[in-house]
Amino acid sequence: MTDVSIDTARDWDHSDVLRHFRERFALPAKVVYLDGNSLGALPRDTALRVSRVVNQEWGGDLIRGWTVHDWYNAALTVGAKVAKLVGAADDEVIVTDSTSVNLFRLIFAALQMQPQKSEILCEAGDFPTDLYVCQGASAAYGRGRTFKMVPRDRLLASIDDNTALVLLSHVHYRTSEIYDMHAVTEAAHRAGALVLWDLSHSTGAIPVALNRAGADFAVGCGYKYLNGGPGAPAYLYVAQRHHSRAANSISGWLGHARPFDFVDNYEPAAGIRRFLSGSCSIIACRALEVGVDLMLEAGIDRVREKSRRLSEFFIQLVESECSGYGLKLVSPRHADCRGSQVSFSHPRGFQIMQALISEFVIGDFRAPDVMRFGFTPLYTRFEDVFTAVARLRTILDDERWKDPVYAVRGGVVT
Amino acid sequence: MTDVSIDTARDWDHSDVLRHFRERFALPAKVVYLDGNSLGALPRDTALRVSRVVNQEWGGDLIRGWTVHDWYNAALTVGAKVAKLVGAADDEVIVTDSTSVNLFRLIFAALQMQPQKSEILCEAGDFPTDLYVCQGASAAYGRGRTFKMVPRDRLLASIDDNTALVLLSHVHYRTSEIYDMHAVTEAAHRAGALVLWDLSHSTGAIPVALNRAGADFAVGCGYKYLNGGPGAPAYLYVAQRHHSRAANSISGWLGHARPFDFVDNYEPAAGIRRFLSGSCSIIACRALEVGVDLMLEAGIDRVREKSRRLSEFFIQLVESECSGYGLKLVSPRHADCRGSQVSFSHPRGFQIMQALISEFVIGDFRAPDVMRFGFTPLYTRFEDVFTAVARLRTILDDERWKDPVYAVRGGVVT
Repeated sequence: MTDVSIDTARDWDHSDVLRHFRERFALPAKVVYLDGNSLGALPRDTALRVSRVVNQEWGGDLIRGWTVHDWYNAALTVGAKVAKLVGAADDEVIVTDSTSVNLFRLIFAALQMQPQKSEILCEAGDFPTDLYVCQGASAAYGRGRTFKMVPRDRLLASIDDNTALVLLSHVHYRTSEIYDMHAVTEAAHRAGALVLWDLSHSTGAIPVALNRAGADFAVGCGYKYLNGGPGAPAYLYVAQRHHSRAANSISGWLGHARPFDFVDNYEPAAGIRRFLSGSCSIIACRALEVGVDLMLEAGIDRVREKSRRLSEFFIQLVESECSGYGLKLVSPRHADCRGSQVSFSHPRGFQIMQALISEFVIGDFRAPDVMRFGFTPLYTRFEDVFTAVARLRTILDDERWKDPVYAVRGGVVT
Repeated sequence: MTDVSIDTARDWDHSDVLRHFRERFALPAKVVYLDGNSLGALPRDTALRVSRVVNQEWGGDLIRGWTVHDWYNAALTVGAKVAKLVGAADDEVIVTDSTSVNLFRLIFAALQMQPQKSEILCEAGDFPTDLYVCQGASAAYGRGRTFKMVPRDRLLASIDDNTALVLLSHVHYRTSEIYDMHAVTEAAHRAGALVLWDLSHSTGAIPVALNRAGADFAVGCGYKYLNGGPGAPAYLYVAQRHHSRAANSISGWLGHARPFDFVDNYEPAAGIRRFLSGSCSIIACRALEVGVDLMLEAGIDRVREKSRRLSEFFIQLVESECSGYGLKLVSPRHADCRGSQVSFSHPRGFQIMQALISEFVIGDFRAPDVMRFGFTPLYTRFEDVFTAVARLRTILDDERWKDPVYAVRGGVVT
């Protein structure tokens, strides 16, 4: 490659302050995994922790596990750890349900808090579940509530007196572009709107400062940069100032003020606990906790710093080594504006990604033409970036992506 | 004991056709576990299956797990297995979310299908989450929908032209009394009402025939008689005839007709898949599958037969051995009317249960005065029933439950 050799990349790895975190993950041999933005890798401690929860806690202590292993408070205690990654107070975050369910309950809460305003504002092309849940929740809420999608460049100008809620992905799933959380929140508040941030591509990837930005609500998933495992529980954030006014319409037993009184009438718990409905899988919650602990141990500032270097190195290499093949950078060029993923478009992006995967470089593809490469500083090395681009170049050079085997679409990734 | 000795009980165990299933569970030594109606025990295969999902599937195959291990369809394939236990067709059940969330989305679906009727009818004293979610969902739905609780003996008479939905626990969590699903459903349909059954205390305990009863909707949890683990995913049932009309207001990505097209507008999938919202923990879902497989292997009719014998033996022993101590049978006396749990009330039920637990007989307590004893034929032996009652008698005889240590309430069980 032009001015950087694999030895240079290895030197960078050698002096990387996060280098020892890679050993904490169980990574398959030969694979260069650049899809941790979709499903994070397995922390070695997770296997041990899960085994302990299953065999000792459940198998050995049975029903008493709810107290002796504090399963009862797991949603809150793991939530308090996630809180540290998103700039929230300990009692503002819980781990529960899925991102979709959390979006639904917080959209409902926001609409109830805004009886005079009718519109939910979203960005066209945002991640589907955000848009779909918004459509469903506004229709379910009824009472004249509507849902509007506008292009990103018209978003700020579209916030007006009638906006009840602005719902946005902080980091875009396709382009990796970051919203200025502070500026958008401020603009929304000026118009009297609330803001709900989807942090699925932010938490564990870049520093997030919900409270400093004055955010109202947030949600996010546990299986990407937090390495919580496939379908890991999600989390939600409600700013403390809203705790007494915001309601959980999915008013289940675990959100009751005194669930073990078994009374017939619902009375919400004080604080964040009211946003619980039913039980979350304890096995899954403890698995997520291991991933969150690892991220806290590494420190999000060090993670972000390495992520910037990895992604800049990747862009620089792709543009120098693979120029002339029609690849186009979709992500912002400046690292300040970009999450921990880099996307390139190509009319045959699907085939190229399939060919890369068959060469053990795993990224993913988003229709119609986007190849996504995720950089997860806890286990991605500079050497991996070098290897990935070298293989990409070979595939483009010898046109092996044209093999009809790579055109078969049946695979499903999330 | 009066007419049955422990040797007789052991003889019954010896000739029990389900006796070998006990070895398939990891049970702590010394413990007589009569709380499988709250949290089922750990199947030995679950530990292996969970380890395989974590290490091989997630750790080894990473994002490709969604296809190569069919994680993508797990909600449906495990749902199809649960369907066999509840008398439903394979494509009428999915495993997803919690019982509370599933109640919410099905209540909303039912209300939308009943634009001319305004009332949801429940039983006072039903399990709290059913009542709480009903209250929350009817308020969230608005549009004049109301929620009414009536005592059990007035329930049928309270169904009228204005009833949109009847929501009931098929087997009562406190008394274990079974509703006649067929009769109630028929009465509701005659008045033009829909019925939503909570099967949390039914599935895996007694045969359930949703389709034969003409049921509309059902939900249930995975962590009781299905042995899915603490906070295991729940399931939901929608009768096929409602698939095209019933909507999922929590309209998330995974319920879309073509999620991988990543389009902006929601279009529900055909069939039961539309009731999915977000991802469910794959680790938790596969753990549940092991429990469901075991139940299918045992056969619900054999399970029910042994459950009747276990619970009749228990009642007979308690009434003969512990008479005069103020215990009162709360459950129906006739086994046909009772699920797989037997409840006795006592003014000092809390202390007595604490004393029993300290003697390694684990049941549970429900305020204000109910002691619950669950019989789970896959791992409960007749000998266990004998031992439990012998210890209960000792505790009552020597009044050791009066020790102040047993009056401390801090424990939390579900």
